[in-house]
Amino acid sequence: MSKVAVIMGSISDMPVMQEAIDILKAFDIETEVDIVSAHRTPEKLFDFSKNAHHRGISVIIAGAGGAAHLPGMVASMSPLPVIGVPVKSSNSIDGWDSILSILQMPGGVPVATVALNGAKNAGILAAQIIGSHNKSVLDRILLYKTGLKEAVDIASESLKE
Amino acid sequence: MSKVAVIMGSISDMPVMQEAIDILKAFDIETEVDIVSAHRTPEKLFDFSKNAHHRGISVIIAGAGGAAHLPGMVASMSPLPVIGVPVKSSNSIDGWDSILSILQMPGGVPVATVALNGAKNAGILAAQIIGSHNKSVLDRILLYKTGLKEAVDIASESLKE
Amino acid sequence: MSKVAVIMGSISDMPVMQEAIDILKAFDIETEVDIVSAHRTPEKLFDFSKNAHHRGISVIIAGAGGAAHLPGMVASMSPLPVIGVPVKSSNSIDGWDSILSILQMPGGVPVATVALNGAKNAGILAAQIIGSHNKSVLDRILLYKTGLKEAVDIASESLKE
Amino acid sequence: MSKVAVIMGSISDMPVMQEAIDILKAFDIETEVDIVSAHRTPEKLFDFSKNAHHRGISVIIAGAGGAAHLPGMVASMSPLPVIGVPVKSSNSIDGWDSILSILQMPGGVPVATVALNGAKNAGILAAQIIGSHNKSVLDRILLYKTGLKEAVDIASESLKE
Amino acid sequence: MSKVAVIMGSISDMPVMQEAIDILKAFDIETEVDIVSAHRTPEKLFDFSKNAHHRGISVIIAGAGGAAHLPGMVASMSPLPVIGVPVKSSNSIDGWDSILSILQMPGGVPVATVALNGAKNAGILAAQIIGSHNKSVLDRILLYKTGLKEAVDIASESLKE
Amino acid sequence: MSKVAVIMGSISDMPVMQEAIDILKAFDIETEVDIVSAHRTPEKLFDFSKNAHHRGISVIIAGAGGAAHLPGMVASMSPLPVIGVPVKSSNSIDGWDSILSILQMPGGVPVATVALNGAKNAGILAAQIIGSHNKSVLDRILLYKTGLKEAVDIASESLKE
Amino acid sequence: MSKVAVIMGSISDMPVMQEAIDILKAFDIETEVDIVSAHRTPEKLFDFSKNAHHRGISVIIAGAGGAAHLPGMVASMSPLPVIGVPVKSSNSIDGWDSILSILQMPGGVPVATVALNGAKNAGILAAQIIGSHNKSVLDRILLYKTGLKEAVDIASESLKE
Amino acid sequence: MSKVAVIMGSISDMPVMQEAIDILKAFDIETEVDIVSAHRTPEKLFDFSKNAHHRGISVIIAGAGGAAHLPGMVASMSPLPVIGVPVKSSNSIDGWDSILSILQMPGGVPVATVALNGAKNAGILAAQIIGSHNKSVLDRILLYKTGLKEAVDIASESLKE
Repeated sequence: MSKVAVIMGSISDMPVMQEAIDILKAFDIETEVDIVSAHRTPEKLFDFSKNAHHRGISVIIAGAGGAAHLPGMVASMSPLPVIGVPVKSSNSIDGWDSILSILQMPGGVPVATVALNGAKNAGILAAQIIGSHNKSVLDRILLYKTGLKEAVDIASESLKE
Repeated sequence: MSKVAVIMGSISDMPVMQEAIDILKAFDIETEVDIVSAHRTPEKLFDFSKNAHHRGISVIIAGAGGAAHLPGMVASMSPLPVIGVPVKSSNSIDGWDSILSILQMPGGVPVATVALNGAKNAGILAAQIIGSHNKSVLDRILLYKTGLKEAVDIASESLKE
Repeated sequence: MSKVAVIMGSISDMPVMQEAIDILKAFDIETEVDIVSAHRTPEKLFDFSKNAHHRGISVIIAGAGGAAHLPGMVASMSPLPVIGVPVKSSNSIDGWDSILSILQMPGGVPVATVALNGAKNAGILAAQIIGSHNKSVLDRILLYKTGLKEAVDIASESLKE
Repeated sequence: MSKVAVIMGSISDMPVMQEAIDILKAFDIETEVDIVSAHRTPEKLFDFSKNAHHRGISVIIAGAGGAAHLPGMVASMSPLPVIGVPVKSSNSIDGWDSILSILQMPGGVPVATVALNGAKNAGILAAQIIGSHNKSVLDRILLYKTGLKEAVDIASESLKE
Repeated sequence: MSKVAVIMGSISDMPVMQEAIDILKAFDIETEVDIVSAHRTPEKLFDFSKNAHHRGISVIIAGAGGAAHLPGMVASMSPLPVIGVPVKSSNSIDGWDSILSILQMPGGVPVATVALNGAKNAGILAAQIIGSHNKSVLDRILLYKTGLKEAVDIASESLKE
Repeated sequence: MSKVAVIMGSISDMPVMQEAIDILKAFDIETEVDIVSAHRTPEKLFDFSKNAHHRGISVIIAGAGGAAHLPGMVASMSPLPVIGVPVKSSNSIDGWDSILSILQMPGGVPVATVALNGAKNAGILAAQIIGSHNKSVLDRILLYKTGLKEAVDIASESLKE
Repeated sequence: MSKVAVIMGSISDMPVMQEAIDILKAFDIETEVDIVSAHRTPEKLFDFSKNAHHRGISVIIAGAGGAAHLPGMVASMSPLPVIGVPVKSSNSIDGWDSILSILQMPGGVPVATVALNGAKNAGILAAQIIGSHNKSVLDRILLYKTGLKEAVDIASESLKE
Repeated sequence: MSKVAVIMGSISDMPVMQEAIDILKAFDIETEVDIVSAHRTPEKLFDFSKNAHHRGISVIIAGAGGAAHLPGMVASMSPLPVIGVPVKSSNSIDGWDSILSILQMPGGVPVATVALNGAKNAGILAAQIIGSHNKSVLDRILLYKTGLKEAVDIASESLKE
């Protein structure tokens, strides 16, 4: 079955990116996790990006903060869909820097960008991509949506009491 | 084979969204195109979102401007991956309104956001999503990347002459 | 007499939205409160929006954070005046996302937007809307304005002592 | 029946504000139009704001650009609902100045803010406020919403041909 | 001699505005302090603004937060120079709202705006305005500038040791 | 009588700054005009700033665009009130750069900042500063305010016809 | 002698980047020019960055727009000083995207960023870097500064006539 | 050998600027440190800027916050490369003020700007400038880059365990 790679630019992104790993586990989708820094390990970036689709990976989730080049650089070399997670790092300017440097990719090289610190949604989006051709995963997404609804119903009930 | 739906909130978004349609045609991927307004045709929005995955669609591209609710509302009801295209409409505030109202989705309901007016990249991303489980489409993406490279090589050569 | 519905996208918006409920109580205006999530309970959103004006509600106050689609989606389906409260949620980008996705509605579907976290003002505005055709409520608003003035007078006096 | 006052800070706001007047006419709602400048005619501002509710006006629409104080100052003195229209004037900073100086009112004094240059929506909102207690106007709003939907249907059809 | 009025929109602005009062005292310039709320005490605003120049006041310092209309409204009615202090209040959007609603005044009605929370500089500016025609105050400003320089010299020395 | 110096960082600022010169002429206040570039003529900047108050100048208006250091640097060396005009130059980022680099001066060195391209208001503010101790100029400002009001009255009348 | 490389992400950046080439020619500094796209020619990016310092280049100027990864990626692989020029490209969000994705580099990998479209300054900065250890180039910079001053003197004179 | 001057506008910038001093020490590059305030010690600014290149200094690092004029003013008078560090000071508007007033220098007077609070990168950039003509320093930079890579390798390993 399809595998999702979750990479991040720095170990300090891990608290945010853990949410992607957790939700993918909940969807029972195999993941591999690694640190790949565009700026500090460019060779690793190349190796990873060039070969991911040869290693059975079908979706890549890449999180980074500040001038966040990791998602876009992976997307420049891999033919796979790349999901970018803008991480609000410590010296970030309210997250605008990571959002804009991930989102505003030039024509030809898309990155599927999610909300600031939106690693959980990155994981769900990866599941949806797999689910687009995998009935079993699609069903889990439908089930998950039912769960979202029921959680609101419960909160709504408790409010009325 | 997989089909991509390209929808937009208003006919005025068509000049931007045409680029998604064109690139999908270039990748030889079947598309359907429609106008679905979250604010003016909410019933159509519901019907479309609830049923797209039953009609053989595997990826949805949704473009909208201003307070752009279309991509997020489709994502709330469809289990398919939804790609959002922020359109810089006439009374937009430099596009910030459409970007933020598409990108900043709450946990549980992702939208794969591309750059402002980035419909072309939305089309490529849809192709990559299909390519993640379709060798023939994946090969076309690799070929497309080669084309991108060669265009730079030619420009680079002309510069040196 | 007129009734005001106060809805919000998530139970986490309650601390902010409580101010709307409190001030409406102070104005002696009947309210109903519920959680309606545009993204997690779209059917409830539809039911609520389509029927509010049949249930004796005359004004709707809707609060939401991030890519806040609740106020605009309710406004797309209800003929009633909808007051939107942008809530500054945890991963919000300083509140800009909720402000812009509530305020920048397209022509045809207005949302009466108040300040960031301005639920109290949303409640007062709802009272003013009722007061625009209800002499007794109008008088209470005039009285409230007198109270605002007197509070400043007292502070001004204490400053001079 | 209820009357709506449409005021603006400068004659240069007229091209934007005309849309409010036009839509109110389409809804068959009586309007009066005037220029009231917070900064250049403060006495007129006082007279207008203090007396509007005595003169049969039930909703006030106020448009202004730059450091736009007109809507908020009217709201400080009138018990009526005040709808603020941020106008993108010539030396405005992309409209941010008018949006923020109308939207971010302090607790106690709400302004119902609509989108940048959103005078049309201000007119519709005024109609909705009247419609909240006037069945005939409410029906016109429902009819208007049907019209919005049908315009999309027609555009959608033309797209498919 | 000239007198400076220091007014503010709310008692909650006092911690910021105190710096203006303190520095004016240090310059030995007479001050009067009051709370004048544009939105809650509009009559007081009118009385104050219309009469300040008749009461021996020569400069007005006005501080306010959020949609800060106080400085501009005073300037609309008083012929005196008005110094505006944008205060970063609790629900402010990083102070942008108060800055823009004070700074971006229309042609004809200037407000001399200082930095966010810059009440100290407002006091110094008031002194400079008086000093522009009062040799004794001008000399105190020159002395103050010498003090600023010497404080840096001392810090610089301590750094080298 | 008092003299106002109008300086600017570049001849390209002249179209904006001309409005300051014109309004000062209308107020019958003597002005001198010069180009003083903080970045290209630092010695001239020093000479000008150190000596302006010895040459009969009582207010300095300084306009500059981009990273606009002229107003702040003059203020660091002159004891006179310095009015800063942020100019929206060609490569400016919507004027934010000039606004922030003029407005956000550190404690101790104020610049009286006016709106983006607000040279006319800078001229009026200079007149108000002189008028704060000169009855004749004060009267002209009151007269000017009457003129502002009457222009609105005329526009208001023409609207009603 | 030292050589400067001027690279850019796309031929469309040439009108902006030409200014760097022109000023370097004026300073009589050898340059080489090429197109190197981080996203479309990643291998060329690697080759260029890894080898520039072996080929006699001592400073690299890199210009790019949107999510501009070129300067930062070159800096990640080259030990040379890299000057980044944010280019305001067509779908850029007022240039904020290119500025932030070039400027906000993580600790360890600096990019010397200049103003939006500031290619001329990038050329001068490259000359200053060479001039920091080359007396002849340093003298040319001092001469250039004299020229800047004289141009202001001439404009100042013409103003006074 | 080359010497680097690290200056800052205020002693309060020291905690940020210390990182530049530390990394330069690690690169074994001689530094001198001082406080030079553009606004409080303009004469010292002149003396420093005019003479730095005569005193054996080859690169200047200047840090400042708010309306940060120090780097640009030094650059206006010194022929040396000036690296600007925007410091996020207490009353800064999220750092935007210092970034824009350092970055957006006019044509002719570049400042090599690094990230907000990026003093460490300023130090590395200074080393790279020296390394551009000093083989020994260049080798240390290459070694430093190897260290960056290895730190990621170690983190990556620990993640897999």
